[in-house]
Amino acid sequence: MDRNKVFAYLDEHFQQYLADVQQFLRTPSVSYTGEGIRETAGQVADMIRTLGGTAELVETPGHPVVYGEIDSGAKDTLLIYGMYDVMPADEPGWIVDPWGAEIRDFLDLGPCVIARGAVNTKGPLSAFFGTLDAIQKAEGRLPVNLIFAIEGEEEFGSRNFPAFAEQYKEKLKQAQAMFFPFFYCDQEGTPTVTLGTKGLCYFELTARGGDWGGPTTRGIHGSYAAWVANPNWRLINALASMKNEHEEILVDGFYADVIPPNADDLQILQDLEAFRDDSLFLQLQEVKRFKFDAQGVELYKHLYFDPTLNINGYASGFTEEGTKTLLPHQATAKVDIRMVPGMEPEATVAKVKAHLAKHGYHDIEMKMHNLYPWSKVSVQEPVVQALLTGYTELGRRPMVVPLNPGSAPYYVFQRTLGMPYIAGGLGHGSRQHSSNEYCTVEGIRDFQKSVVAFFGNYVQLQARGRG
Amino acid sequence: MDRNKVFAYLDEHFQQYLADVQQFLRTPSVSYTGEGIRETAGQVADMIRTLGGTAELVETPGHPVVYGEIDSGAKDTLLIYGMYDVMPADEPGWIVDPWGAEIRDFLDLGPCVIARGAVNTKGPLSAFFGTLDAIQKAEGRLPVNLIFAIEGEEEFGSRNFPAFAEQYKEKLKQAQAMFFPFFYCDQEGTPTVTLGTKGLCYFELTARGGDWGGPTTRGIHGSYAAWVANPNWRLINALASMKNEHEEILVDGFYADVIPPNADDLQILQDLEAFRDDSLFLQLQEVKRFKFDAQGVELYKHLYFDPTLNINGYASGFTEEGTKTLLPHQATAKVDIRMVPGMEPEATVAKVKAHLAKHGYHDIEMKMHNLYPWSKVSVQEPVVQALLTGYTELGRRPMVVPLNPGSAPYYVFQRTLGMPYIAGGLGHGSRQHSSNEYCTVEGIRDFQKSVVAFFGNYVQLQARGRG
Repeated sequence: MDRNKVFAYLDEHFQQYLADVQQFLRTPSVSYTGEGIRETAGQVADMIRTLGGTAELVETPGHPVVYGEIDSGAKDTLLIYGMYDVMPADEPGWIVDPWGAEIRDFLDLGPCVIARGAVNTKGPLSAFFGTLDAIQKAEGRLPVNLIFAIEGEEEFGSRNFPAFAEQYKEKLKQAQAMFFPFFYCDQEGTPTVTLGTKGLCYFELTARGGDWGGPTTRGIHGSYAAWVANPNWRLINALASMKNEHEEILVDGFYADVIPPNADDLQILQDLEAFRDDSLFLQLQEVKRFKFDAQGVELYKHLYFDPTLNINGYASGFTEEGTKTLLPHQATAKVDIRMVPGMEPEATVAKVKAHLAKHGYHDIEMKMHNLYPWSKVSVQEPVVQALLTGYTELGRRPMVVPLNPGSAPYYVFQRTLGMPYIAGGLGHGSRQHSSNEYCTVEGIRDFQKSVVAFFGNYVQLQARGRG
Repeated sequence: MDRNKVFAYLDEHFQQYLADVQQFLRTPSVSYTGEGIRETAGQVADMIRTLGGTAELVETPGHPVVYGEIDSGAKDTLLIYGMYDVMPADEPGWIVDPWGAEIRDFLDLGPCVIARGAVNTKGPLSAFFGTLDAIQKAEGRLPVNLIFAIEGEEEFGSRNFPAFAEQYKEKLKQAQAMFFPFFYCDQEGTPTVTLGTKGLCYFELTARGGDWGGPTTRGIHGSYAAWVANPNWRLINALASMKNEHEEILVDGFYADVIPPNADDLQILQDLEAFRDDSLFLQLQEVKRFKFDAQGVELYKHLYFDPTLNINGYASGFTEEGTKTLLPHQATAKVDIRMVPGMEPEATVAKVKAHLAKHGYHDIEMKMHNLYPWSKVSVQEPVVQALLTGYTELGRRPMVVPLNPGSAPYYVFQRTLGMPYIAGGLGHGSRQHSSNEYCTVEGIRDFQKSVVAFFGNYVQLQARGRG
């Protein structure tokens, strides 16, 4: 593959590829509401077909997975994982229509596409298809065969993806490794390579009136609080029993199976110190201080190797304007646990349940939404090295981090399909899950070149491996 | 006054008075939204004028107070306090249109009017005006002069009523005592006479990200919980520090000024034991057990003489269906304290603030909505005796309770106007502030007769007092 030829083609046709990204972002594809989901899945399948591939929508109990293949007659095959769904865009504070994909100068970053999904991850997905088009147009064919598995429920915690992977196991295992295209640079252009992900356990805790006390079917007058217990106090006392004011999780054995960072991890964390200006994180996220008085390696240990117990939301009783006096009959908290290496999902859930039982909260209901494990990949894998080398070739020094503090279903690739995986690409965007999600226009161009370099390096490393 | 003549007139025209009650309930008058408020105030003023009185809408910063006078040329004057506003009717579970005032057989009670306001308190207010009409038609004139102060913000905690009372003090003090018409019987027909009310302190506590940590302007991705504190945990830990699992309020000095029940109060509580079947309360409110393992006098002490700290509602972050992972930037709890005799509002608020400060929660905002004191009246007052005697004459044995566990602005009458007061009337209704609020049709008839007896007895007792 003549990279420079492909780069020239990309530069020449960039306005078209940029317009394609904008167009793709203008169809909402909200997994929570289902809005635009099937239309967008169809668009993805069409993109694969336009490149000469085959594609189908694989039905699941939820939204379909787009499965596709492009056979280039190459020796190597990569699995392209991606997602076509996005979060809702109902937060206040958007300065443009979240489905308008307008280009605006933003945050001193120059022109940016501002839209729900700009970075997470319809922007990168569309830019990836543009890259494939450019390679084919410039070179005649792709240097690798591709298999696609683009899901529509990532923001639901990928709840039907594991069953899909099981069902399509034999087809998917034709690939040697998985690649997830993403804009992975920070504001200063440094790309991150992440070697794993925490697991996710997302559940609702609900206290409602019952044999223990409290109103059972409806809220009653607030003055009865002198006689009748309040499910809010029950849930609040139960939650407070699980975490103290010093950020320690008090569930028995919660940390027992945690594997602390090993020597390699600690080396990676030390290398990080040279890279990171954590005040940028605070600035971008509009946070005034970290919750630990730590810095450098000690701070990173918290981010990457601490499990978390987070309250995403809480709802009970009268919450509108005014002063209705009410003793509510139920209270619900949406809670998630991020599990680090060593913590198995079922065991973690069992510990939370045991904690509630031990403290007498047998009645508090635990409704499980998502439950999937952590995963970790070696930095020596060809798919990882191909990406890292490509960054260096393009003049960027990549930052390697041991784990994504968020969650993604990479365990499916590691545990179900037994293949290494990496997510990557140049390009920058942020504010995912918030108002004014964006990606920079220049980052799209960088991303496309980094994908070209990645493919080239991967093919070379594999050939070298075959001797 | 020839009571039997009035009773006969009431019986003969009952269908019309019942229809008037229904009609009055069909105009929503929701203080929270303002819906129908002015229209309903106008209806009340018209009712007074129809009886030959004068009436005006007295403007306040909120909804107007209906002030009126009916001069009957009598020696005695009563102040009629009432409210024309109701709670919203947005609870699920209504079996009829809450503004339809349909009559249905309900809960083995025979025909009932089911509507928002049926018992609290537009039903009694309309039935009271019907009674006045009947007395005038049967007797020519009322046995007492009446002054009316009917407010439209009782469900807001009567926030502008104290200033109105101050402004109209000289006019209002022409009355010797206040009477608040209400359907005060339980399901078995026993009327309650309540000799006071707890005070109310209603406020919002809000934890939001700031110098202490947490996101300051918007929710951020839930995975950042490994680095960034969550306002939910802060508010939950703060609330949990205020009340333990044994229903003890842990705010320093919270109980310090509480005046325990005196010998008279204890006698009243003992008399209550003969009356009350508390399982009826549990059944009606759909509660399985009280929060204390107590009964009789010990249980009543809790209801009437315990201050409460109640959470009416709690809202934070993502509360819809699904699994959005979010670290919210704020959390708000709507809290109310019911103050018993001895607890002064300002001192109570100061203790809560001191508690938050002591535990390091200087950043948690406390937004005050309502703040007014308790009040108490002697059972020996003529206005109380007139009501009690009337009940007995109508064959009912009244149940006397020392305090209303709910709150009402009676301190205005006691502290501002220096007059005794009582709320009363036969008739039954319940489920106020809940779905399917109702009053029984037969109770309306009983109520009207009890008002006639009350007037008669009051005039006699006052005449006896004058010698």
